[in-house]
Amino acid sequence: MKGQKIITLLTDFGVADSYVGVMKGVMLGINPELKFVDITHAVPAGDIKKGAFRLFTAYKFFPKSTIHLVVIDPGVGSKRKPIIVETKDYYFVGPDNGVFSWIYDREECKVYEIQEIPAEISNTFHGRDIFAPTAAKLSLEVKPIKLGREIKKYISFKPPTPYISQTQIKGEIIDIDKFGNLITNISKSQFYKFINNKQFEIKIKGHKIYEVKTSYEGENIIAIFGSTNFLEISLPRGNCASLIKADIGNKITITKQCGK
Amino acid sequence: MKGQKIITLLTDFGVADSYVGVMKGVMLGINPELKFVDITHAVPAGDIKKGAFRLFTAYKFFPKSTIHLVVIDPGVGSKRKPIIVETKDYYFVGPDNGVFSWIYDREECKVYEIQEIPAEISNTFHGRDIFAPTAAKLSLEVKPIKLGREIKKYISFKPPTPYISQTQIKGEIIDIDKFGNLITNISKSQFYKFINNKQFEIKIKGHKIYEVKTSYEGENIIAIFGSTNFLEISLPRGNCASLIKADIGNKITITKQCGK
Amino acid sequence: MKGQKIITLLTDFGVADSYVGVMKGVMLGINPELKFVDITHAVPAGDIKKGAFRLFTAYKFFPKSTIHLVVIDPGVGSKRKPIIVETKDYYFVGPDNGVFSWIYDREECKVYEIQEIPAEISNTFHGRDIFAPTAAKLSLEVKPIKLGREIKKYISFKPPTPYISQTQIKGEIIDIDKFGNLITNISKSQFYKFINNKQFEIKIKGHKIYEVKTSYEGENIIAIFGSTNFLEISLPRGNCASLIKADIGNKITITKQCGK
Repeated sequence: MKGQKIITLLTDFGVADSYVGVMKGVMLGINPELKFVDITHAVPAGDIKKGAFRLFTAYKFFPKSTIHLVVIDPGVGSKRKPIIVETKDYYFVGPDNGVFSWIYDREECKVYEIQEIPAEISNTFHGRDIFAPTAAKLSLEVKPIKLGREIKKYISFKPPTPYISQTQIKGEIIDIDKFGNLITNISKSQFYKFINNKQFEIKIKGHKIYEVKTSYEGENIIAIFGSTNFLEISLPRGNCASLIKADIGNKITITKQCGK
Repeated sequence: MKGQKIITLLTDFGVADSYVGVMKGVMLGINPELKFVDITHAVPAGDIKKGAFRLFTAYKFFPKSTIHLVVIDPGVGSKRKPIIVETKDYYFVGPDNGVFSWIYDREECKVYEIQEIPAEISNTFHGRDIFAPTAAKLSLEVKPIKLGREIKKYISFKPPTPYISQTQIKGEIIDIDKFGNLITNISKSQFYKFINNKQFEIKIKGHKIYEVKTSYEGENIIAIFGSTNFLEISLPRGNCASLIKADIGNKITITKQCGK
Repeated sequence: MKGQKIITLLTDFGVADSYVGVMKGVMLGINPELKFVDITHAVPAGDIKKGAFRLFTAYKFFPKSTIHLVVIDPGVGSKRKPIIVETKDYYFVGPDNGVFSWIYDREECKVYEIQEIPAEISNTFHGRDIFAPTAAKLSLEVKPIKLGREIKKYISFKPPTPYISQTQIKGEIIDIDKFGNLITNISKSQFYKFINNKQFEIKIKGHKIYEVKTSYEGENIIAIFGSTNFLEISLPRGNCASLIKADIGNKITITKQCGK
């Protein structure tokens, strides 16, 4: 990986304080050629699972050798490790608290505990004092092994996967976007393999849907495969989450209509 | 137009999801030299008129050959066309749903239907799959005609214009900004041509104003020409929209005080 | 200062309107090589003190010769002066209304009234018409004295400092961040000099704290030195401001437990 200049940022810092700007200032002090792209800073405070999913939806749309800086770090100042995750195409920098779980699940990863840490750092803002400087050094083509040591144990949770039997998929809502689209954990390939050209019934919060649409049309809630290839439940020109009072974690079932 | 590196982004995506970051990632994959400027991502979901006006307030302050990427696209996945609009100084890329109406009204435009579209695209995120790649290709000096075909029919609404008689201007509020300033559709040139050095009465939501100020001073609501040269109604150091409970679409009349 | 390409932006414009984008467009028209970093645009409308503190928390983390553009300007269009502030390492550009008070307090400053102003400017958006162009010109290494004249009188308020006696520090909350951390005006050096290895009691809104932590741990509200070296009161994995209903301006006292 060489010549990398892109660092993405994903945090729970919000944009009302100066924390995000400060991290960028620190990084520009180390590598003035950097380009930043904000993924989002609106992850709810300390919501590691939401941050992990946001990262998953974005990371692979960036050019090879992009560095993804992720600071959702409720354990800042405690003993949780600061880490670098290396995949074939990307670096990831952030705390070892599970925020890279989707990456571990989808990519071959090497994980390094960051050990090159300044003598004097704050107790509360390792984004500024550890993670941002590490990301900026990686952008200068410093190898991870120069910044820490490889570790084999790190924190990972299993991304929520649906239960699939012969006759039914039991999934759940794992995200809700600004438009009120309900993103489920049922992937396109899982769905079509299961359906196998049979008819089906999708059931969510008492509502039933019998087809998958290919555009946001009609007056009722629809099922459609979204941009991350997960099944989504949506209300064309309206907010599905508000309409049916859906929340993250709500169940969705797909039942095959056998013999029909 | 050559050497262009600036792409502006205007969407209704919000900044809590990763959609905006993803579009930037895709574009950097095509042209790593790009500079991005966000106009806004806070247009209400699907609000084409608001997006059209936001674009109007911003586009001409950018250097020549800037590319303006506008993704307010409630019809994504349907038959609405993806288009490029070319003016003397700029390119615009987005859906053919009226979001470029103010541009059509103010500039000489050539409009192209985008035809260079990947074989596999999502149903729900043409910002990522069609519009962003098109904008990035234009930044590499690919000509619009290489990306599509010129079309003569496209969707346009007439920007709201005031009714002007000998004695009265009847206008309306077309935007309200963060400060609660009420932006009307009455332009500076329309106003002064109409007034012609006579006295006048401005009436809005029962309030009357008899002069146009040149700074935010005083305790009461005032009339002032804003930064887009439209007449604005404002409350110095307060929020006029909240105070007088004003909304977009509310009427404003200016009556000439003849013979006085 | 040469080769500067970084301009930070700190405003009360919000990000729903196009004002911030427009300023960036204007600056790129003057210097296409610029890099922008947003500090924040979420300062409440006209809140000069909040803006001044946000600037203080961020400015010194940027590389030397960064230009800090600050537009919190409730007096736009009135007689308040547009100014440039020059310190050893940075330029600051904005209105003369006290927003640079923390800078005056911490740095040796030269202050210039901006006099190079276009003949036709708006009444309402000097960010676009005066401040942004001035910042962009400074980035091209134009000297401040070419853009205005040095002035000795300018508006400054004293940053809130704690009252410190032999036995007590009386401070106050000067900021609350997204996480609900209460940032006080009691600095690390003031605190440790005062405490002098004695025991102490911190009292805020009826709550008592007897130690300073070094990480966000435990179930109760804690005291911790934050990233700007001020004492902060926090609720680990919760929102302290909400819990104890704290506001900016609330008092905090630290009492030395003499003889114990």
